[in-house]
Amino acid sequence: MLKYQQIAEEIEKYIEEHGLKQGSKLPVIETLMKQFEVSKSTITKTLELLEKRGIIFQVRGSGIFVRRQNRKGYISLLSNQGFKTDLEDYTLTSKIIELEIRKPTEEIALNLNMELHEEVYYVKRIRYINGQTLCLEESWYNKAFITYLNKEIVAESIFHYITKGLGLKVGFSDVYLHVGKLTEEEAAYLGLEKDNPKLLVESIFHLTNGQPFDFSKVTYNYEQSQFFIQANSHFF
Amino acid sequence: MLKYQQIAEEIEKYIEEHGLKQGSKLPVIETLMKQFEVSKSTITKTLELLEKRGIIFQVRGSGIFVRRQNRKGYISLLSNQGFKTDLEDYTLTSKIIELEIRKPTEEIALNLNMELHEEVYYVKRIRYINGQTLCLEESWYNKAFITYLNKEIVAESIFHYITKGLGLKVGFSDVYLHVGKLTEEEAAYLGLEKDNPKLLVESIFHLTNGQPFDFSKVTYNYEQSQFFIQANSHFF
Repeated sequence: MLKYQQIAEEIEKYIEEHGLKQGSKLPVIETLMKQFEVSKSTITKTLELLEKRGIIFQVRGSGIFVRRQNRKGYISLLSNQGFKTDLEDYTLTSKIIELEIRKPTEEIALNLNMELHEEVYYVKRIRYINGQTLCLEESWYNKAFITYLNKEIVAESIFHYITKGLGLKVGFSDVYLHVGKLTEEEAAYLGLEKDNPKLLVESIFHLTNGQPFDFSKVTYNYEQSQFFIQANSHFF
Repeated sequence: MLKYQQIAEEIEKYIEEHGLKQGSKLPVIETLMKQFEVSKSTITKTLELLEKRGIIFQVRGSGIFVRRQNRKGYISLLSNQGFKTDLEDYTLTSKIIELEIRKPTEEIALNLNMELHEEVYYVKRIRYINGQTLCLEESWYNKAFITYLNKEIVAESIFHYITKGLGLKVGFSDVYLHVGKLTEEEAAYLGLEKDNPKLLVESIFHLTNGQPFDFSKVTYNYEQSQFFIQANSHFF
């Protein structure tokens, strides 16, 4: 981890631990430079990262402020592979239903930009939050990049293994949302009833070189899940 | 609009018009500098903006590539006040149900960080896509900032009026998603049935100084709406 990333984590932790609310003013750049004993350009990079992550916002000529969502118990839709930061007070567990090496179907091959004769790791698991079903997850990993998986890895955070264990760099993801009705099978896995509402989230994760390596379909239990997203001005 | 933003729009338009696919390589920085007759720092800012918007991705030592979602007909969840770029081939219309000045309820005052004795513009409208109901929208605008609204404005894009007409600068938004079942009233407005699935999207829009000015609740017709979000590496 680079210096500016490390400082970003410390500032985030500080905001968290002191329960600073949205709009709270943070020290000026000069103070942060002295406190962390780094140059202005390092602090600038730190602040840019914190801004992108939705932790702070900067007002020209006025200062740096805490930008924090005010509601508790929401899952961040854009970092949901981790869950950790958003659901700190919750216990997350997984039950593996399937883990095997397969050939991709046409749909999977298309989304992962691979050939039909190549191979994927297929993972199907149920995720629980405090013992309640949170979601049913199916994922397809291109075996050319995710060369090895086993039950122990799949029972924990697969993304932690991919980045720390395999040392791959995740670049960006495309996320598609559909609202619909649960099938009988999905309802059975989630402990709900057929035709209950469902949120289906399809994600394609790419490495920093633009190569897709993971396609996943996650069906959420509507009773357990609410989500938030923080958007920045470049979207308007 | 600043020079780098203008160039960003031109590049985006070029990608659009030439139907460039994800992974297509764009010219190197030096070529872009010559083509647009600007400095390296301007092109760097252009590329940063395009990257944030999910239009391109940069690979160190390798080049600049088109990052474009491959699926058609999805609404961008983070820029849905505009709809325009994502739903270019569709016709969007609105029917106003209510437009009035009110006192905020406690819920509204809390989300807009205002006092109960202050006033809001309340707007309720149905939005149609190609004649089909897309969503039922309720919005509350803090009258201290959105000083004037009328039926003509509300029938078109309110955000266009806020930014171009009132000259306000939109900074960031917090977006909350809930999946549930339609009430009888919602179902009637959307032409669906009670207890059908619904996606409720609550958004709080802030000015660049951090002041919230618009709180909205949008209930989508699940049959007409599918969404996408592009996420960048700082979320992982």
